[in-house]
Amino acid sequence: MLLYTIYLIAITAEAMSGALMGMRRNMDLFGICFIGTVTALGGGTARDVMLGHYPLGWVAHPQYLLFTIGAAVLTALIASHLHHLRRLFLIVDALGLVAFTIIGCNIGMEAGVHPGIAIMAGVVTGVFGGLLRDVLCNQVPMVLSREIYASVSLATGALYLWLHYLKVETGLASMIALLAGFSFRLLAMRLRWQLPVLRGEHIKGFD
Amino acid sequence: MLLYTIYLIAITAEAMSGALMGMRRNMDLFGICFIGTVTALGGGTARDVMLGHYPLGWVAHPQYLLFTIGAAVLTALIASHLHHLRRLFLIVDALGLVAFTIIGCNIGMEAGVHPGIAIMAGVVTGVFGGLLRDVLCNQVPMVLSREIYASVSLATGALYLWLHYLKVETGLASMIALLAGFSFRLLAMRLRWQLPVLRGEHIKGFD
Amino acid sequence: MLLYTIYLIAITAEAMSGALMGMRRNMDLFGICFIGTVTALGGGTARDVMLGHYPLGWVAHPQYLLFTIGAAVLTALIASHLHHLRRLFLIVDALGLVAFTIIGCNIGMEAGVHPGIAIMAGVVTGVFGGLLRDVLCNQVPMVLSREIYASVSLATGALYLWLHYLKVETGLASMIALLAGFSFRLLAMRLRWQLPVLRGEHIKGFD
Repeated sequence: MLLYTIYLIAITAEAMSGALMGMRRNMDLFGICFIGTVTALGGGTARDVMLGHYPLGWVAHPQYLLFTIGAAVLTALIASHLHHLRRLFLIVDALGLVAFTIIGCNIGMEAGVHPGIAIMAGVVTGVFGGLLRDVLCNQVPMVLSREIYASVSLATGALYLWLHYLKVETGLASMIALLAGFSFRLLAMRLRWQLPVLRGEHIKGFD
Repeated sequence: MLLYTIYLIAITAEAMSGALMGMRRNMDLFGICFIGTVTALGGGTARDVMLGHYPLGWVAHPQYLLFTIGAAVLTALIASHLHHLRRLFLIVDALGLVAFTIIGCNIGMEAGVHPGIAIMAGVVTGVFGGLLRDVLCNQVPMVLSREIYASVSLATGALYLWLHYLKVETGLASMIALLAGFSFRLLAMRLRWQLPVLRGEHIKGFD
Repeated sequence: MLLYTIYLIAITAEAMSGALMGMRRNMDLFGICFIGTVTALGGGTARDVMLGHYPLGWVAHPQYLLFTIGAAVLTALIASHLHHLRRLFLIVDALGLVAFTIIGCNIGMEAGVHPGIAIMAGVVTGVFGGLLRDVLCNQVPMVLSREIYASVSLATGALYLWLHYLKVETGLASMIALLAGFSFRLLAMRLRWQLPVLRGEHIKGFD
């Protein structure tokens, strides 16, 4: 229940972040609603296609589209004021990343896949929305090059699966993974942790 | 039947438009055939994957590939003369957009999804081919930023679903939606209608 | 069996090539592992989604991910020495392209699709990994514009299906197609064969 509430807040925040990036590319209103929706629901969609898990979440629950489209339209109206909320956005995005991951792991486990694949299902749910947003905005996906972001998703999923393996009750396991992942992400932002970036501009002979 | 004829004409025209864009990126013959095929059949493929509707249209009807590949090769041969046909292209593209949308709505309704999702199935069928073409050609998808294009698809789908709700006979509903959507698109081009573009280059703090 | 061994070698080599391209885009360790995995397993994934063939290969065999992630990490460690191995890479890549194609054709035939679609399943398996890698690295996919690469996949698939049509025993047919496709690719590289590139920068009026 808590997870579901967080999920709705998170898709709203993700849709707003996608809409903002669309505006920075001078998209029109359709484009902004589209990119907001892809950012919010693209992760779950990619996971479901990967698992052959039909119907897709938003096909079964069309009301999700109202959230994402509403959030995108709202963003278009109030965009010039949103920079005051930057910190709030980052916090909701961190919560969303972790909630998406746990929900994705759950769906992977229900589908009966190998635990490692269930973690992948969580990571895909967490990071694919932003990745598709960046591809549509014609830039190299940020998640592949900046900050501890995907790693938070990976760590959260691994912790959650491990708690399941230890037979911790599902609600408690979700809560622990949620708190741990969220703290990890906030710490990573605060302390500017980064994975090693492997500079390879100089590598020749492989184009 | 009419819809099917329009469909074949439309995938041919879409394949030609994709092939032209491939040529402008100096692709080779394989690339041109590939990009033409993706432009023509990508919308229906995305819709079918979204609905879990297998087999995909072109897997069940491989002859569609002959149309798209033939159209791409033809385009490569006569490209330097095609600018005389620009107006014809735009008209066939408008017809195709509307026909794709109606066909997509039909497949959504057959799959038994919510009416709003059936409209989405129509819009995805209408616009995803061009969107994938633009992603492969490494540019921000035009459909997200220019002209009343996706909106025509959305309006056509909504009208078509509404006619169904009113129990209008399917053939007649298709015809009305086709004419209305086509007229809307032609008017939008003629009068240079645009959705509001939400300029946001100046928005800071969200990268 | 031989095909399977070649498959494992090939996904390792493809993952390394993807990881190298990720390093050239200054990705972090997650990005490099991700792009390596997409390059190696993206072709089979796209084919399985196209055919509705579930579970996906790497979902059923999670150990493939160990190969691709291991290969990516290894690449990050020894990248500065890899240019000595450029020739070996090209040879393994050629083997992989042909092996991927034959495996893809087999899966298409098992799915009972039209022979032309089985060939497409082979080509998608062969070329989509590199195509997705290039989209994620924000460049026009190389396979669409350079060298006889996709054509090798197409010719290998067509030969393999033709041998099946002639009732040649499967093991023998694989072997013939493998050798013929591999030789074709090596010759194309050595002699710098190219498909006609259709320069169209000058085409106006279609944007």
